Amino acid sequence: MDRLNSAYGQLATKFAQLGHLGAAEHTLFWDGRTKMPTGGAASRGKVMATLAGVIAEKMADPDLADLLERAENEEASRLGEWEAANLREMRRRWRHETAVPVPLAAELAERTALSQKAWEKARRDNDFAAFAEPLGALLALQMEVARVKGDALAMAPYEAMMDAHEPGLTMAFVDALFDDLARFLPALLARIMARQAAEPAPLPLPGPFPHSAQFALSEKLSAMIGYDFDHGRIDLTAHPFANGVPGDVRITTRFYDDEPVAGVMATMHETGHAMYELGLPGEWAFQPAGSARGMGLHESQSLIVEMQAGRSRAFLPVLAGLLREAFGGEGAAWSDDNIIRIYRRVEPSHIRVDADEVTYPLHVILRYRIERALIDGSLDIAGIPHAWNELSRELLGIVPPNDALGCLQDIHWAMGLYGYFPNYTFGAVAAAQLFAAAIRQQPAILPALGRGEFAPLLGWTRANIHARGSLPPSSDAIIRAATGAPLGADAFKAHLTARYLEE
Amino acid sequence: MDRLNSAYGQLATKFAQLGHLGAAEHTLFWDGRTKMPTGGAASRGKVMATLAGVIAEKMADPDLADLLERAENEEASRLGEWEAANLREMRRRWRHETAVPVPLAAELAERTALSQKAWEKARRDNDFAAFAEPLGALLALQMEVARVKGDALAMAPYEAMMDAHEPGLTMAFVDALFDDLARFLPALLARIMARQAAEPAPLPLPGPFPHSAQFALSEKLSAMIGYDFDHGRIDLTAHPFANGVPGDVRITTRFYDDEPVAGVMATMHETGHAMYELGLPGEWAFQPAGSARGMGLHESQSLIVEMQAGRSRAFLPVLAGLLREAFGGEGAAWSDDNIIRIYRRVEPSHIRVDADEVTYPLHVILRYRIERALIDGSLDIAGIPHAWNELSRELLGIVPPNDALGCLQDIHWAMGLYGYFPNYTFGAVAAAQLFAAAIRQQPAILPALGRGEFAPLLGWTRANIHARGSLPPSSDAIIRAATGAPLGADAFKAHLTARYLEE
Repeated sequence: MDRLNSAYGQLATKFAQLGHLGAAEHTLFWDGRTKMPTGGAASRGKVMATLAGVIAEKMADPDLADLLERAENEEASRLGEWEAANLREMRRRWRHETAVPVPLAAELAERTALSQKAWEKARRDNDFAAFAEPLGALLALQMEVARVKGDALAMAPYEAMMDAHEPGLTMAFVDALFDDLARFLPALLARIMARQAAEPAPLPLPGPFPHSAQFALSEKLSAMIGYDFDHGRIDLTAHPFANGVPGDVRITTRFYDDEPVAGVMATMHETGHAMYELGLPGEWAFQPAGSARGMGLHESQSLIVEMQAGRSRAFLPVLAGLLREAFGGEGAAWSDDNIIRIYRRVEPSHIRVDADEVTYPLHVILRYRIERALIDGSLDIAGIPHAWNELSRELLGIVPPNDALGCLQDIHWAMGLYGYFPNYTFGAVAAAQLFAAAIRQQPAILPALGRGEFAPLLGWTRANIHARGSLPPSSDAIIRAATGAPLGADAFKAHLTARYLEE
Repeated sequence: MDRLNSAYGQLATKFAQLGHLGAAEHTLFWDGRTKMPTGGAASRGKVMATLAGVIAEKMADPDLADLLERAENEEASRLGEWEAANLREMRRRWRHETAVPVPLAAELAERTALSQKAWEKARRDNDFAAFAEPLGALLALQMEVARVKGDALAMAPYEAMMDAHEPGLTMAFVDALFDDLARFLPALLARIMARQAAEPAPLPLPGPFPHSAQFALSEKLSAMIGYDFDHGRIDLTAHPFANGVPGDVRITTRFYDDEPVAGVMATMHETGHAMYELGLPGEWAFQPAGSARGMGLHESQSLIVEMQAGRSRAFLPVLAGLLREAFGGEGAAWSDDNIIRIYRRVEPSHIRVDADEVTYPLHVILRYRIERALIDGSLDIAGIPHAWNELSRELLGIVPPNDALGCLQDIHWAMGLYGYFPNYTFGAVAAAQLFAAAIRQQPAILPALGRGEFAPLLGWTRANIHARGSLPPSSDAIIRAATGAPLGADAFKAHLTARYLEE
């Protein structure tokens, strides 16, 4: 087969260009969050809209649809394993991108902008009623989008939403996983709280914590994990993120004046994301098959670094030593034991992003149940605050004192981002299962972490997760191959039980 | 006329999108010079090539050509002044962009990359012979490009090259201007050198000059000139530049460890460029009519700040005070008189970018004469070093000891950038003529500079230069309207004579 002139070869050229345009979007997004002067926002909005328009235009080109059909019908049998996966992923992206008619997509973009503005104000004013109408208008459109996507993808509407972030994720799977966790976690939480009450409360670390010292520590930790500063950089933003282009994957973190532990963990979390992107197969850079498999699996790669390795009994003493070194700490507050207690404190709280790893899934389940009910029509917009508070009482045992600390806390619904929340817990559960398999298969991992060496762990994740790109059709397929079992909650439950009740 | 559905209206939409894509290129260029990790270069090259390809594709779209014809033939009489100028500029850009056949452009890009690499090595090794072949290959192609462009634009090939940077610039004009300066400057230089020899040599400023203090001084100076940090930022690069997107125009500067005056002037120079971009008419943002008129006029806006105002007798004492404040300077070296002597030192030297304002045009004339002879065939590649050295002796009175300090010093030819050098002297001459007109029309300018206030000067340049965008068909038209005379060397000659022989 003439690779370059084949339908497949032409598609590879076209998708590489789409990848380059996506890379421009990524770098400009990073710039917008880190370096752009505020006065650049209006221009940047126009530039981003035009880039998105060019991508949509190229994806909707009838030539591309013809090439996809020709490649699938005439060339599929001659394609290698990676090429076949690449073609499958091209079709998947094409279906997602072209399912939504352009006028509907444009209306959605407009309503999303209005809804986001309304949410910002409503959260500031603690006024859900003011947000109800724009949220309802956006949701109605979003459901229309989900319906047309569902039709195009032969999926239930909500699954079409989830599929955009984590291909192949089903409601049946998420329902079962979350019901299991919703039964298990509250009881576990009660036992952990009782055990914690019998132990000394952690002493706060005495400051100061100059940002320069926090930054140096973040760089040291990222380098320790294996992050290569020739292919990345660290900056500060209010909301940390990792953002990748082949060979150039940047992370951001944030620091607080009054304590250094949150900054450390934000850095480790985002470094985990970056390691996934940097470990993707370089020969498939910019091609669909060379992309990360899904956002749930992505989250597992941040959490395997932050939660599984980062708060392991093996690594926390290393981290404690680094903290003492960075901030000149001495005395009881800076002891290994106290720092371990700080990093392993469990406490039901209102804000998801500040939650510990035991209560975090309960925040996610709460949101999943609400958005699922919104989509199937069993809950209306006006009923959100009440439903939120009841679920919070049931799952976390606490009720937010106001909507700003409750149903208004997250931007996701205001952005029309439904079907995304499950990924956070998919990632936590997958991280536990992957880490358990990793230390079973590679006994050097834990002792190495005890010396501050991540190479054995990252060697395993690179080979079993990162380098596989989107060759397998789903994250579950990657997890099965890596761990020998389908994704389930057992390892996560065992991990939490061991860490918080036994260690 | 239905503005949106008219041919003109459709063109405005298409050119806005082209403007947005160009803005993406600008910001990514900035990122590549300032923030990108080295490992991002390969991806960035691909992203930039794809963006350039999308722009070329959109420009070559037959629909766009049809719309241009329809707008010119059917709607021109109904267009307002700005719209008519915008349509004229669209056609101009279209001619430049579409004149070169795609295969020729691709070959040019490839040869340029090779030639640049060869130049870097040749300059490092001081080995012109190793550069001769790739330079010749690139020049041959470049001449082919110039011929097809010249045909498309109805210009001589070399003028088509100049026209891309400074529309309407003719060889007749540049020849006359440069012959005039080549007669005038060497004699002036001799008189200045004689006068300088009779005066005390400037004392070097004693350090240290911490970069943090240089940075703070740069920020202070830029703000003094009127640069708004809500619409820009300063970073450090080896080669300073200003880089603009509407509402977000960033500058870079560079500092030396052993002296602070070059950094100050690099900042003032780039701030001048940025003020031009930020002063362009906002309602024509992203449209051809809203763009800077030409690179020569652009240079005049950097030099009116750096050279005309920045080294004026009125402002230098203010700057001297800022330097003393920034570096805690005391004593004779830090006196106003000594700092003025430093900033006004004249000395023939080999490197163009380090030249003072008296000898700088001689460097430019030297290059112009060589590239003109290369293009008309009266000089071949192998003859460049000899021609360079002879011209250096004739114009500057010195001969470079080697080619690295001679004909290998600039990257322009290695990049295929012919017809660009004249802009530097166009800018210097225009800056003098514009400044003379400004202080004549607005007597508040000089006294204000004496108080460190740039607002009267920038108010004048904004109204007479910046806000006019590309409404007039050429920089000369803007200069005529602003000064009452066509561009000429008289003001520049008077300026140099006054500053270096009379003040």
